[in-house]
Amino acid sequence: NSKMKLFTLTGNEPLAREIADHIGIPLGKCTVNRFSDEEVQVNVEESVRGCDVFVIQPTSQPVNENLMELLIMIDALKRASANTINIVMPYYGYARQDRKSRAREPITAKLVANIIETAGANRVISLDLHAPQIQGFFDIPIDHLMGVPILSDYFLEHEGIDLEEVVIVSPDHGGVTRARRMADRLKAPIAIIDKRRPRPNVSEVMNIVGEINGRTAIIIDDIIDTGGTIKTAAQALVDKGAKNVYACCTHPVLSGPAIERIQDSVIKELVVTNSIQLPEEKKIDKITELSVGELLAQAIVRVHEQESVSILFDQT
Amino acid sequence: NSKMKLFTLTGNEPLAREIADHIGIPLGKCTVNRFSDEEVQVNVEESVRGCDVFVIQPTSQPVNENLMELLIMIDALKRASANTINIVMPYYGYARQDRKSRAREPITAKLVANIIETAGANRVISLDLHAPQIQGFFDIPIDHLMGVPILSDYFLEHEGIDLEEVVIVSPDHGGVTRARRMADRLKAPIAIIDKRRPRPNVSEVMNIVGEINGRTAIIIDDIIDTGGTIKTAAQALVDKGAKNVYACCTHPVLSGPAIERIQDSVIKELVVTNSIQLPEEKKIDKITELSVGELLAQAIVRVHEQESVSILFDQT
Ligand SMILES: Nc1ncnc2c1ncn2[C@@H]1O[C@H](COP(=O)(O)O)[C@@H](O)[C@H]1O
Ligand SMILES: Nc1ncnc2c1ncn2[C@@H]1O[C@H](COP(=O)(O)O)[C@@H](O)[C@H]1O
Repeated sequence: NSKMKLFTLTGNEPLAREIADHIGIPLGKCTVNRFSDEEVQVNVEESVRGCDVFVIQPTSQPVNENLMELLIMIDALKRASANTINIVMPYYGYARQDRKSRAREPITAKLVANIIETAGANRVISLDLHAPQIQGFFDIPIDHLMGVPILSDYFLEHEGIDLEEVVIVSPDHGGVTRARRMADRLKAPIAIIDKRRPRPNVSEVMNIVGEINGRTAIIIDDIIDTGGTIKTAAQALVDKGAKNVYACCTHPVLSGPAIERIQDSVIKELVVTNSIQLPEEKKIDKITELSVGELLAQAIVRVHEQESVSILFDQT
Repeated sequence: NSKMKLFTLTGNEPLAREIADHIGIPLGKCTVNRFSDEEVQVNVEESVRGCDVFVIQPTSQPVNENLMELLIMIDALKRASANTINIVMPYYGYARQDRKSRAREPITAKLVANIIETAGANRVISLDLHAPQIQGFFDIPIDHLMGVPILSDYFLEHEGIDLEEVVIVSPDHGGVTRARRMADRLKAPIAIIDKRRPRPNVSEVMNIVGEINGRTAIIIDDIIDTGGTIKTAAQALVDKGAKNVYACCTHPVLSGPAIERIQDSVIKELVVTNSIQLPEEKKIDKITELSVGELLAQAIVRVHEQESVSILFDQT
């Protein structure tokens, strides 16, 4: 086995330190700066020759900066004769641009996969890709971990929640499989918010498929971005008789009006992971942050020891 | 011949409009926006099927944003069945990271070439690459134009300059060929600033090779970034007896303290091109901006008509 080295770029340094602590090795020495004209300057300050290198970098906001840091780091590692270059992307930016839904749209999620490979990556470890099909955008191996077990375990031990009353809610049709997975772990039923636009230019109707009356609803999504969907979904659940509404997601993008919307919403608590680093001003009382550090550490160790990683996500 | 279409991204819209005016066709409809989380959203709003598309985008500051816009645009055009995708990059960002000068350095200029090709570009038109070797970083054709004729023509017609007294100065050893080209056009001698560090941790000595006493010096460089080199060079020239000092460059990066330094320097006038768009606050009296619009328009037309482009730069 080649020696393992871990590096972090600027995307999520606290998470990288956590991962390193779990594995029990220090982070490799590497500095990421900007030249005066804002071009990225990467300095790998220790030898990586013959090593299995793991680079931790979610491509969250600022996405283009984080992505370029990653590509340039891969280039530097490749030229420095690393044995393998493994990219740990807890959050995969541009994942939502994963198909042409209109004429002449780019498929940026595929472009990102292509350029990561072109730069010289040998393997990718990611978490809750917006669409699992993004795995197929890569020709190199990709390990796809899931946030559901971590989010579920939190609710299983939640003091304020009577598990008998819980219903897991998918905020849209696309998320039903994820809701089903969580429901299995909590031994709860599911419900689906069934948005429908009766005619063009007529506002959406919020239908709820499933029994929620008098129940504690837990909405689960992969990404919460501007918070619009989750806020309206929570309101619809309360309007239709839900007793309490909790929400959870793997990736707290939380851009634009998100924090205000969550603050103002009927959501009692929003549970997220640290796949994306929350800046201080977004750490409001309503938000609980869980760590994916141990999960990613386990995946890294298993990849390095050439053991199956699927045991980490086939846990439902 | 396929139909030509021109598009601009946000890198340098005024230059793109100038190019379109010279060619006599309108810019194609295309909008470049940001999603709430700052991911780039490109909308090509007219058909490009079967067209020879030219995309105008210098990758100047903000370099990573401009580069991602370009890659995503190429992806969209490729999927929209453009016949050829031709990239007009008047300024090539990351050009200075063109070799490993220390261990474990990336070669970002090569990475950029690779990812532009991977995205799907068929041809690149650029201007005064920091090193002409960057042409070889591409496996697709690249046309390499030069700013020297435009800069030289300006000085040839300059009312305040007596051409008999001119000496063209290269600010470093790397720029001597460029200085020679300009000197040929102005029928002037050259001089070279010969920086030397006698011993490590001893400050640099500014030697001047060539006759400058009583002469009007015109310093020429490809890029002026923080302005440090040019300011010190100009001072050294005056100290050694130059009568006046002018400076010129193709790419006015002008980051950090550049404007202040130029303002405070002994330089009488700095002549630049619009390969990079100057923001209003950098348009100081000392700076004269020349246009590369016509040159790029000619190159685009010649590429589209499958005629040789070299006539445009073998003019010395
Ligand atoms: N960063 C983004 N923010 C908001 N919407 C996006 C973003 N990227 C892509 N989209 C759009 O989101 C839609 C896909 O979302 P979904 O239906 O949830 O898979 C597509 O119409 C995309 O154009
Ligand atoms: N954006 C930049 N700003 C300043 N220096 C840079 C930049 N990119 C690369 N460099 C450094 O500039 C040097 C190359 O410049 P040169 O010797 O003029 O070709 C290398 O040492 C690079 O590390």
